[in-house]
Amino acid sequence: MADMGGVEQDDDFRTETDALGEMKVPSDRLWGCQTQRSLQNFDINQPRDRMPPSVIKAFGILKGAAAAVNVKHGALDAKLGGVIQQAAAEVALLKLIDHFPLVIWQTGSGTQTNMNTNEVISNRANQLLGQPLGTKSPVHPNDHVNKSGSSNDGTATAMHIAAVLDITDLLLPSLARLTEVMRQRARDFEDIIKVGRTHLQDAVPLSLGQEFSGFATQLEYGEKRIRQVLEGLRELAMGGTATGTGLNTYEGFAEDFCTEVSRMTGQQFVTAPNKMEAISANDALVFASGALNTLACSLFKIAQDIRFEGSGPRSGLGELILPENEPGSSFMPGKVNPTQCESMTMICAKVVGNHTAITLGGLSGQFQLNAFKPLIISDFLHSVRLLSDGMDSFRKNMLVGLEADRERIKRLLDQSLMLVTCLQPHIGYDMASKVAHHAHKKGLTLKEAALDLNALSADEFDRYVRPELMIHPSPQPAKS
Amino acid sequence: MADMGGVEQDDDFRTETDALGEMKVPSDRLWGCQTQRSLQNFDINQPRDRMPPSVIKAFGILKGAAAAVNVKHGALDAKLGGVIQQAAAEVALLKLIDHFPLVIWQTGSGTQTNMNTNEVISNRANQLLGQPLGTKSPVHPNDHVNKSGSSNDGTATAMHIAAVLDITDLLLPSLARLTEVMRQRARDFEDIIKVGRTHLQDAVPLSLGQEFSGFATQLEYGEKRIRQVLEGLRELAMGGTATGTGLNTYEGFAEDFCTEVSRMTGQQFVTAPNKMEAISANDALVFASGALNTLACSLFKIAQDIRFEGSGPRSGLGELILPENEPGSSFMPGKVNPTQCESMTMICAKVVGNHTAITLGGLSGQFQLNAFKPLIISDFLHSVRLLSDGMDSFRKNMLVGLEADRERIKRLLDQSLMLVTCLQPHIGYDMASKVAHHAHKKGLTLKEAALDLNALSADEFDRYVRPELMIHPSPQPAKS
Amino acid sequence: MADMGGVEQDDDFRTETDALGEMKVPSDRLWGCQTQRSLQNFDINQPRDRMPPSVIKAFGILKGAAAAVNVKHGALDAKLGGVIQQAAAEVALLKLIDHFPLVIWQTGSGTQTNMNTNEVISNRANQLLGQPLGTKSPVHPNDHVNKSGSSNDGTATAMHIAAVLDITDLLLPSLARLTEVMRQRARDFEDIIKVGRTHLQDAVPLSLGQEFSGFATQLEYGEKRIRQVLEGLRELAMGGTATGTGLNTYEGFAEDFCTEVSRMTGQQFVTAPNKMEAISANDALVFASGALNTLACSLFKIAQDIRFEGSGPRSGLGELILPENEPGSSFMPGKVNPTQCESMTMICAKVVGNHTAITLGGLSGQFQLNAFKPLIISDFLHSVRLLSDGMDSFRKNMLVGLEADRERIKRLLDQSLMLVTCLQPHIGYDMASKVAHHAHKKGLTLKEAALDLNALSADEFDRYVRPELMIHPSPQPAKS
Amino acid sequence: MADMGGVEQDDDFRTETDALGEMKVPSDRLWGCQTQRSLQNFDINQPRDRMPPSVIKAFGILKGAAAAVNVKHGALDAKLGGVIQQAAAEVALLKLIDHFPLVIWQTGSGTQTNMNTNEVISNRANQLLGQPLGTKSPVHPNDHVNKSGSSNDGTATAMHIAAVLDITDLLLPSLARLTEVMRQRARDFEDIIKVGRTHLQDAVPLSLGQEFSGFATQLEYGEKRIRQVLEGLRELAMGGTATGTGLNTYEGFAEDFCTEVSRMTGQQFVTAPNKMEAISANDALVFASGALNTLACSLFKIAQDIRFEGSGPRSGLGELILPENEPGSSFMPGKVNPTQCESMTMICAKVVGNHTAITLGGLSGQFQLNAFKPLIISDFLHSVRLLSDGMDSFRKNMLVGLEADRERIKRLLDQSLMLVTCLQPHIGYDMASKVAHHAHKKGLTLKEAALDLNALSADEFDRYVRPELMIHPSPQPAKS
Repeated sequence: MADMGGVEQDDDFRTETDALGEMKVPSDRLWGCQTQRSLQNFDINQPRDRMPPSVIKAFGILKGAAAAVNVKHGALDAKLGGVIQQAAAEVALLKLIDHFPLVIWQTGSGTQTNMNTNEVISNRANQLLGQPLGTKSPVHPNDHVNKSGSSNDGTATAMHIAAVLDITDLLLPSLARLTEVMRQRARDFEDIIKVGRTHLQDAVPLSLGQEFSGFATQLEYGEKRIRQVLEGLRELAMGGTATGTGLNTYEGFAEDFCTEVSRMTGQQFVTAPNKMEAISANDALVFASGALNTLACSLFKIAQDIRFEGSGPRSGLGELILPENEPGSSFMPGKVNPTQCESMTMICAKVVGNHTAITLGGLSGQFQLNAFKPLIISDFLHSVRLLSDGMDSFRKNMLVGLEADRERIKRLLDQSLMLVTCLQPHIGYDMASKVAHHAHKKGLTLKEAALDLNALSADEFDRYVRPELMIHPSPQPAKS
Repeated sequence: MADMGGVEQDDDFRTETDALGEMKVPSDRLWGCQTQRSLQNFDINQPRDRMPPSVIKAFGILKGAAAAVNVKHGALDAKLGGVIQQAAAEVALLKLIDHFPLVIWQTGSGTQTNMNTNEVISNRANQLLGQPLGTKSPVHPNDHVNKSGSSNDGTATAMHIAAVLDITDLLLPSLARLTEVMRQRARDFEDIIKVGRTHLQDAVPLSLGQEFSGFATQLEYGEKRIRQVLEGLRELAMGGTATGTGLNTYEGFAEDFCTEVSRMTGQQFVTAPNKMEAISANDALVFASGALNTLACSLFKIAQDIRFEGSGPRSGLGELILPENEPGSSFMPGKVNPTQCESMTMICAKVVGNHTAITLGGLSGQFQLNAFKPLIISDFLHSVRLLSDGMDSFRKNMLVGLEADRERIKRLLDQSLMLVTCLQPHIGYDMASKVAHHAHKKGLTLKEAALDLNALSADEFDRYVRPELMIHPSPQPAKS
Repeated sequence: MADMGGVEQDDDFRTETDALGEMKVPSDRLWGCQTQRSLQNFDINQPRDRMPPSVIKAFGILKGAAAAVNVKHGALDAKLGGVIQQAAAEVALLKLIDHFPLVIWQTGSGTQTNMNTNEVISNRANQLLGQPLGTKSPVHPNDHVNKSGSSNDGTATAMHIAAVLDITDLLLPSLARLTEVMRQRARDFEDIIKVGRTHLQDAVPLSLGQEFSGFATQLEYGEKRIRQVLEGLRELAMGGTATGTGLNTYEGFAEDFCTEVSRMTGQQFVTAPNKMEAISANDALVFASGALNTLACSLFKIAQDIRFEGSGPRSGLGELILPENEPGSSFMPGKVNPTQCESMTMICAKVVGNHTAITLGGLSGQFQLNAFKPLIISDFLHSVRLLSDGMDSFRKNMLVGLEADRERIKRLLDQSLMLVTCLQPHIGYDMASKVAHHAHKKGLTLKEAALDLNALSADEFDRYVRPELMIHPSPQPAKS
Repeated sequence: MADMGGVEQDDDFRTETDALGEMKVPSDRLWGCQTQRSLQNFDINQPRDRMPPSVIKAFGILKGAAAAVNVKHGALDAKLGGVIQQAAAEVALLKLIDHFPLVIWQTGSGTQTNMNTNEVISNRANQLLGQPLGTKSPVHPNDHVNKSGSSNDGTATAMHIAAVLDITDLLLPSLARLTEVMRQRARDFEDIIKVGRTHLQDAVPLSLGQEFSGFATQLEYGEKRIRQVLEGLRELAMGGTATGTGLNTYEGFAEDFCTEVSRMTGQQFVTAPNKMEAISANDALVFASGALNTLACSLFKIAQDIRFEGSGPRSGLGELILPENEPGSSFMPGKVNPTQCESMTMICAKVVGNHTAITLGGLSGQFQLNAFKPLIISDFLHSVRLLSDGMDSFRKNMLVGLEADRERIKRLLDQSLMLVTCLQPHIGYDMASKVAHHAHKKGLTLKEAALDLNALSADEFDRYVRPELMIHPSPQPAKS
């Protein structure tokens, strides 16, 4: 809805009018009437829950790209287009972030943030042209800055741009760094054979390097999944305007817009083949959140294993030595805690919770619009940011400094009953079981138990029970 | 863990040392070494995800109460106790909030925020006594401020205090205000009979007042449930110290502490009968979150119904007229949207997502500690705040200004086929069904259809089909 | 919708007709046309996802009670009422369960199961009166069996009856049995002092009995919470008919109905004060599911702790000895796994998942009806049943047979560094920390380290470091 | 663990002995001692929650393939291998499904179902060879049927095989059928221009065909996502044995096994590059469940839109005419409900709930094993089946018979204010807004309002306001 009038100014506020009447706007703010209304109508958890800066940045990119395409096609005066691009670039660089005061708990289309952007850009553009704020002239927020767009396709577009940029700028690099260190640690630990644990019970051995190679593979697959879900996020709704039909745009706009955004960001974007889907649903973000949810599962598992294997110092598993980053307790001197693992698992729980909220938002679209957009993108970007920062923190403050307690690992392995498994091909399942039980009941070593039961000779035992031969398949099958 | 050394100062930083070595702390900050370490080790989504102020406030209350009890029992020098209480009061009033820079993505026990509090209070107390920052003398963060407490019972306690205060200060009042207005609207609308809708299909009538009375009842039950869950939150872990045993406290401390906190806050608190449970689990908060989750279901339903009944202006249900708070679209002039409903339903989805995260944190306790505490309390308080602010916004900007379109409601009712139901006792289920089908197929009114089929006379029809008689049970059963 | 015609019979099928035309119904089945239509229209995961028997039982109770009240008030012929009660009793006893073939993936009001019940009871009643199936005479499914009710209030009512009965018949007794054994085990273990664990790291000691008392308290609170949520489930929607207004019922019906159901079941039920709420929302079940969700958190935590403390046999924590219920592995002889813990934690995860589904159903009511009723009640009862059976299994096959490895527990305690905490009041936080670090670095016992550093004398050490004094508060505070 | 003894038989039971002692097994059952123990130790929601047949089928395939590869490599006697393959084929064809009585609430590795399979196959093989049940000779359940495998890699493998087969056999075909019909309906409706709705409020028009094309695109993307997640499910853990190292297998086994399974099933499977990951995590299923979760969001949205657009008959939106599949109410004659939409949205809510449970299971792996396997695969396959059956039901009983009420759609469009949008390029945003407001306030048509305000001429109005020109971009931009 538009203003129908002018602007009055006093020292602290200027008065703007629109169809609903007058509003006082702080004199030094670039936003206008509609932003001000939202600020007053949605006083909900200010300022913590403001629209994420990444979305504001994406709106800046969007407005600049739209202006460029509109100028190219003669839909917008070149001079106005130029100054809009200049102001939009400032938005995209977050130089004007203080002028975006709205929370995500606003209209579900994100219209108010779209209008906030339009108002800031038009005011800033007019300011650059030497005009006072609030005049809407020569650059009008709706007629010029919002040209060829609507809040509906605009917000959907800004969401995808923000998601792609944060994933490629923050998440994938952080994940790659963590994966690289994890692979390195797997190599560091490849000669350390340890007792395996299944059901938390002692099991046949593996190397610590193999264990960490499993973690590294989880992370590599995490990256692969994120790259798969990125594909859908590269489709942009722009050109669909309000209901996806493209009313008030023109042929070529949508495609050229994506070309321009790709150029500006260095990331590939394409126009969504079906704009109705792109506006009325946010399925691509729900699916992408599923990849974050899966990565959270991986990281939760990794952090849990490391903190349990690092438990101690004397009554835990004690196979890993955690870096001592801080004193662990205000009460118990000498204690060092797996705080990075705790932080990471809390982050993962949060990502799972965000995924639930995103899913609920995702299934709640109605007719031509999904009106849970600010929630969906805010929670999505929160998950991206938490995982990115969290993985960096975990890598730097936990993984890099992690050490194996080789002595304890060897001691546990030597006393393990589970090496009996490699006797099975030689003495049969039933006898192997008897040996293990005998050792268990009497507190013997396996060898003692085996000899006690005449299961085989000492020589045979030493020849068969060699942990280093137990962590790979045999070249040949044992005879049945 | 304690420092073992002194403090060196330059212009911007002072250098403190602890068991792990030296740290530079900003000169003008009241926090110390351990806070500084956490700040550096957990650089995760700063500053957005800082520990909620309500938790800091609760820690302030806790430290003041503990000092009072310690002085009373001779466990703490009265002069030191007095100045600790003074500094703690400043923390509780959030005057020192800028000195609490840590994010929730820290150690899962909240130890670092507990130490942050200890450091700020000891520094502030020493400052009040004319000492420079960082000396830890005469007031020591561990030996005095943390006296009779541990991070484990302390954080658990602060969580419950914060939850009870935010619920009683914010949520219950906001809910009461909304309920009151909802009851008023139910009275305002009690004479407006409208078509009912089940399965989204026309159904037997009810009054708009009855519909809103259902909403009011949902809210009343919401309050009742919140009061039920409050009970468990009033139990405090303090006195359990690290593992719940009460080591290094003394008889009477736990009970006197609760008395003191009750006095300070005006809310009743009691000592948890079993401190192991109170520290190793956070079930009371999980259950309480379930009440918020249920309230979210109620509010989601209410907001959905109102926005659908307010849909239009010309192609929707159009029974309610929504207040015109802001222009609705940057593109389509003349459109006004149910933005308060959208904001509310997004909030509800978020509360459901927070509940998932809280549940995941709640089931992840290990041995003597649940180490998901910062996540649990942060998400819980976020839900409390969102619901509180959201209900206020919804009340002021939606519910108060809501109007019924009496004319349209009457028109829809008059043309409804479903009034046929009141014919069932008179002409039987099968004939009533025939009449309705006949009207439906031929586009007739019910009366026309009934006469057409000789189901009854016009007089009988008018006598039986009276919507105002259809919205309550009969005084007597109809004859079978 | 009613039949308008008769019934034709061949050997395998009889043909019934209703407003939508003819349907073939198996000759030997008591259901009718509407059930048959649902069977054909909703061929979804048959037969696994059929409506739970507890709901059918509740519908049987409901129909019997409604008939009794209708007869009392003269709304139903006494002879018809009597035979309806007789047939309804057979339904309630699940004698006719083979005649309820519908899945929960039907209409969201549960209308089809309500009609299934009406059809079975009318056919069975007519059969008892010597009439062939399908005649609907003298007992008509709608006019008589459904008298004074609608599917909407009926299904809502059956849900609450089923929930209350399954909770009181299955869940609370199972929970009470588990709690009783848990309390007993706490007593069994009360003299066993062990190392505490916070952050998975060694912490100050507690008794194994204290640890289990924490579990017992979790369960006791679980019961308390379930009793709190039961309150809302005791309210019944019956008497609200389709939209909550009570159209086609009569004064006194609703109250008398609850009296009758209370009499039949031995459980107290009251009429819902607001029937609009009771039909259009299922908040009471969402809240109740929140109590199950909390119990799941408790049980998850308990099972996790037990399986970790029972990990081994030689490379785990090894403090508990798990009962050997079955061979643990097809591959590794001698291994016994915490399978009851695994089963229990899977059950808990399922209950959490069901809670998400119930919540989603709970917030999706529209206007005068929540149309997710079959999902909500099915998942709710599934959670109730799983927790009940799961707790019984866990109790019998895990908890009763659990033993403490006293020798290992003592060994771990003796070597623990964390006993240092009880030195803090005597030698100060900083020196206590130094002693612990010294022991840790040099592999010394605490006593050796303390003497090495001249922290105190050997006598003093022995006097201060007494684990049995460390698991309770002191009678008096230590001097500051 | 193995038996150490023989088998005794009476009429109803035979007695088998293993390391833990004697067990009575029903004489006519092919299962053995270990299955019997599980049956007694896990009496949890029998028989409803039995292991899904698709998993049993997958185990049959697995055992047959393993035997084939073992014979090929000389690890298994060819004759024994042959009869194992024959028995395994019967398992895979579900001919022996009555011999698989175990519930999913068993050990989290699925060991008991693996042993159930081993026991059934060995007994059936021995039976085929003329031996009595229970002899374990000549075919031994562990030494021969389980050869080269462990429960850990076996269950992980069976899960992936079952998931791939159910997705490709059930889900993708059902989804393809629904998509095809949805595309067809989009074509059927492509000439029907209707009022758009954003925020539930009237918006610029689109064709009903465009709306349905959005649905079709959602489904097409759903298929694409499922194909993406299938990739990870094609990796099999087999060859990793207990901890992923491949102990007791031989080089070539893993690869040949996948080749054989691919041959048997017609689906491509490859050996997992890292078997530690494949056993200790189930991330691939968590991610795949995310695709089902997204499909659930799509279907929820589609079903919601259709039921709202089909609401009525006289007081709803009334744009769609729903097929009349069954009488809708036991109470209100003449009512037809969107029951297929209700069923579908309940299914979607269930899939979301299952996703939560799967996620929780997915993040709970510990060390070398994720011990939530039966829960994860059971919920996953449940979601697959529900979506498959649900989409078929929705297609057949809702989508195929759906009709547009062209007359009502046109009436709503003609009276819509939102056509004003196409005036914006011609008369400006502000004047267009005034016209719409004028019409709204005075109850005028847009044309009347526009002329009233002298916004343009009647000719211009008719030239500009043409809905059929409003549902696509213009060939050229309007002049700015």
